[in-house]
Amino acid sequence: MARSSTFGLLAFLIGCLLPSGVLSLWPIPTALETGTTGLKLAPYFNYEIDVQGAPADLIEAVAQAKYYLETDKLGRLVVGRGVNDTAALTNAKSLSSLKLSLTQGAAVESISTEAVKAIGTRSEEYTLTIPEDGSAATLTANSTLGLYRGLTTFGQLWYYYGGETYTLLAPIAITDAPAYPFRGLALDTSRNFYPLEDLLRTLDAMSWVKINTFHWHVTDSQSFPLEVAQYPELAMNGAYSPEETYSASDVQYIVAYANARGIDVLLEIDTPGHTAIIGETYPDYVACFYESPWATYANEPPAGQLRFALPEVANFTASLLADVAKTMTSTMFSTGGDELNTACYTNDYPTQQELNATGMTLNDALNTFTMTTHGALLAEGKTPVVWEEMVLDWNLTLSNETIVMVWISSEDALAVADKGYRLVQVPSNYFYLDCGAGEWLGDDPTGNSWCDPFKTWSNAYTFDPLANLTESQYELVLGGQQALWSEQSGPQNLDPIVWPRAASSAEIFWSAKQPGGAALNVTEALPRLHDIRYRMVQRGLMPIQLQPQWCALRPDACDLYA
Amino acid sequence: MARSSTFGLLAFLIGCLLPSGVLSLWPIPTALETGTTGLKLAPYFNYEIDVQGAPADLIEAVAQAKYYLETDKLGRLVVGRGVNDTAALTNAKSLSSLKLSLTQGAAVESISTEAVKAIGTRSEEYTLTIPEDGSAATLTANSTLGLYRGLTTFGQLWYYYGGETYTLLAPIAITDAPAYPFRGLALDTSRNFYPLEDLLRTLDAMSWVKINTFHWHVTDSQSFPLEVAQYPELAMNGAYSPEETYSASDVQYIVAYANARGIDVLLEIDTPGHTAIIGETYPDYVACFYESPWATYANEPPAGQLRFALPEVANFTASLLADVAKTMTSTMFSTGGDELNTACYTNDYPTQQELNATGMTLNDALNTFTMTTHGALLAEGKTPVVWEEMVLDWNLTLSNETIVMVWISSEDALAVADKGYRLVQVPSNYFYLDCGAGEWLGDDPTGNSWCDPFKTWSNAYTFDPLANLTESQYELVLGGQQALWSEQSGPQNLDPIVWPRAASSAEIFWSAKQPGGAALNVTEALPRLHDIRYRMVQRGLMPIQLQPQWCALRPDACDLYA
Repeated sequence: MARSSTFGLLAFLIGCLLPSGVLSLWPIPTALETGTTGLKLAPYFNYEIDVQGAPADLIEAVAQAKYYLETDKLGRLVVGRGVNDTAALTNAKSLSSLKLSLTQGAAVESISTEAVKAIGTRSEEYTLTIPEDGSAATLTANSTLGLYRGLTTFGQLWYYYGGETYTLLAPIAITDAPAYPFRGLALDTSRNFYPLEDLLRTLDAMSWVKINTFHWHVTDSQSFPLEVAQYPELAMNGAYSPEETYSASDVQYIVAYANARGIDVLLEIDTPGHTAIIGETYPDYVACFYESPWATYANEPPAGQLRFALPEVANFTASLLADVAKTMTSTMFSTGGDELNTACYTNDYPTQQELNATGMTLNDALNTFTMTTHGALLAEGKTPVVWEEMVLDWNLTLSNETIVMVWISSEDALAVADKGYRLVQVPSNYFYLDCGAGEWLGDDPTGNSWCDPFKTWSNAYTFDPLANLTESQYELVLGGQQALWSEQSGPQNLDPIVWPRAASSAEIFWSAKQPGGAALNVTEALPRLHDIRYRMVQRGLMPIQLQPQWCALRPDACDLYA
Repeated sequence: MARSSTFGLLAFLIGCLLPSGVLSLWPIPTALETGTTGLKLAPYFNYEIDVQGAPADLIEAVAQAKYYLETDKLGRLVVGRGVNDTAALTNAKSLSSLKLSLTQGAAVESISTEAVKAIGTRSEEYTLTIPEDGSAATLTANSTLGLYRGLTTFGQLWYYYGGETYTLLAPIAITDAPAYPFRGLALDTSRNFYPLEDLLRTLDAMSWVKINTFHWHVTDSQSFPLEVAQYPELAMNGAYSPEETYSASDVQYIVAYANARGIDVLLEIDTPGHTAIIGETYPDYVACFYESPWATYANEPPAGQLRFALPEVANFTASLLADVAKTMTSTMFSTGGDELNTACYTNDYPTQQELNATGMTLNDALNTFTMTTHGALLAEGKTPVVWEEMVLDWNLTLSNETIVMVWISSEDALAVADKGYRLVQVPSNYFYLDCGAGEWLGDDPTGNSWCDPFKTWSNAYTFDPLANLTESQYELVLGGQQALWSEQSGPQNLDPIVWPRAASSAEIFWSAKQPGGAALNVTEALPRLHDIRYRMVQRGLMPIQLQPQWCALRPDACDLYA
């Protein structure tokens, strides 16, 4: 009665029927041609860098790629994990090299230099060709950054079984370029602190799915972990502990690590709201500092906002932002600007005194403050980035170059675009990774997450970056990102709450065809997302399971109407 | 303008105003008296085991307790993490020993033996006294299991700062006993597999909050990771891979590890539903095996249920259950019984043929099947455990000793009690740890979790084990547990999705006063839950953050109406 074979006939049949064409790539390339021939990696497989004066970070990136090739050892996601692939490899040729080269005349600059060029001026496109006959594969691009993207794609093509690293899809021809120049991930390191190693691991994972911006929301009302050379007391008094800080050298290390992986670091020091903790050092600069009930003065505890109407506060803030911004390689810097609570200032004596003395409204004062802080950033050659309220709720004089992040709702992109600003899509109703974890305030056992429900990868994946916009506004959409706010997160759940979900926006903003192209399809995408998730596990990350493994091994068998 | 002190006046004041009486204990003891005197652990602190012929697992438990005392190094959860406690310790006495002894006449048996006695006959109570003058602390109990519980409590009393391990609460007198005999945690290792090390780490964490039952839902329709000596093909064909199995020696190791930590292992082989994977080995035994559309035949993919009407299937199942049960030390064994889908049998020829031949209804056949399987367990001296449908949806002849698990809704406990069965509370609307993670089926991007929303610790904590029951039914409630079903979980998120939330039920069923006592209070509990969570982090677990650390350091400051 009992069957004796380990994985039987049914499993074999399911394995053979798989739509295996593009299962392994994330984000899916713009143009992809595959064959049906098996091809093995030669034991002596090597990368040939045919680039004059190859920069150090390209050489390191190749070494990293070689390490992943040797250690991924990812079994194909079918029943048997590749046991049935061995027949197709019996007469397969061996690939012995991948040759990297730049297109003729391209300037040779480091990946790190290319990664931080002004948004819209970077070159990430590449061409990858893998013949089936064992002759050398080729990767060409217009920049080392493009080569880096191509290396990432190459590394996703290979499975492992029984000592062989192989693909069943040779020959392969890929021509690829991103749909949008801004593809980010936002992380809040203030509500709870993340050690350096967690940020580095996250940057690695970002690079695997071609995310090119780390939006680092480094401070907030709860803690100020950023050590600033000119203002050391901010972290001394505002970090959770001396150990829970980012030193200047930590920041430089993170930035260098990110840049070498094709990732720009967009730092945010949120102002003038979300700044209570600054009151630990400068109590005179903060209104409604730790006042109770917090709910009257802030969206979450503790209350406390900069007294932006005071000239000395504007000057301090401008100096702080400029001092930090000038240490960063990015051309962008975020001054925040979300959830400013006006009740905080209604009975604030210093603020009201200043407004009475100058005859300014609160809006006037905020305009002066913003012109001062943004002016300091512009003087450093930085492009200011703000949250949507700064252009939708307040009447401010902002540089036309200002980049606006849409977060409250996906519906708000149109209003921002109508004002002519470039925008980044971070809509909470699709992209907030922390939603759905229940109420975190104390004494509220029946409360739910404010942005319930949980945003699944597939829900995020249906986001349309151009929805509601007119065709002439499309060019204003720079891209988008998912975001983790850390009220209920920390190093303990970082990987599983972020991954693989954050890959959804990575693919939307790399692969979505600019306007009128085919929409991305969740049913096609799921097997590929499983694939990159399992590869992430092989590389030491802790991404959450999306389904029972039974489903991961049987594409579409667990679809709603399967 | 800038303050120079690291943690200033405000922080000091908050630290002094803390209600520090019982912040450190979870679950809270039945009777607890504390003082306000500082007491340090002597550098040469030692445990004295005053037990004739002390069993090996007690000696090991003491060694483990000593290790935790030396390595926890938990800073108190106040601003400054204990920097302001040093003054109170200047003249503090040093505690040099804790003496463990059994009450006179108590039989000396191992913790492992005591932990698996029949439910309701175990002795977990203990008395712990810690004088303030440095004289020996004493721990007494009626069993080694009680001593183990007391050791756990002792280990939660100590904070660390600047080289000192101390309490500010001496003298301390605790008399403690559990309110309910069954305090569990359920884990599904079938939808996704958990390596041995993950189970061991989970057992450790369970022991820290005095959970005494590991309900191991080891198999389901998706995989059969359990190696059974008499039926080796079940795992050979049903495990996800040869590496993703629990060998007989793994199971013995897990059971011994659990028992030595005061934890009984209640194994479940869910039958007759949730058994599709058995069809990989015995296709003749499984109806609607992998049939499509799965939704017609099962609550989730894949479809497939035992053909329980066939005598050979009943005999096979009884033999399988008995063979496994006899290898377990527990007196309990679960045969499952949830979500049996009748449509699966409507057009199943072997089933209908059997029913026609015997003149039995489907209910008759299920009764015969259950009497066969339960009979085999009873013959092995095991008490059967079933899910609620077996007594609420079907008319079956079950032993009066059968224990029923309530899961569909907390409302269903009354109906089970009305039938006179002992019950365990696992209500999905309070205790399912997987709820709120969104739809996991493919091709359903707008779908939500079937048991939305996420069950926060505080929501779970409001559960009343005796709600709706009559006073005469109270004794039927053995206890309860939280449960992790693994459609969207695996080793990658095990710690943060389970901990510290599973501590909610641990306290409900240890500390809730049996009937008419004071209700537990979420506002009082939160600081203590933070405390055990931070201690778990010190011990290498990865429990999720419940709030920003700013809130964890300031009890009540982040309450809804603070």
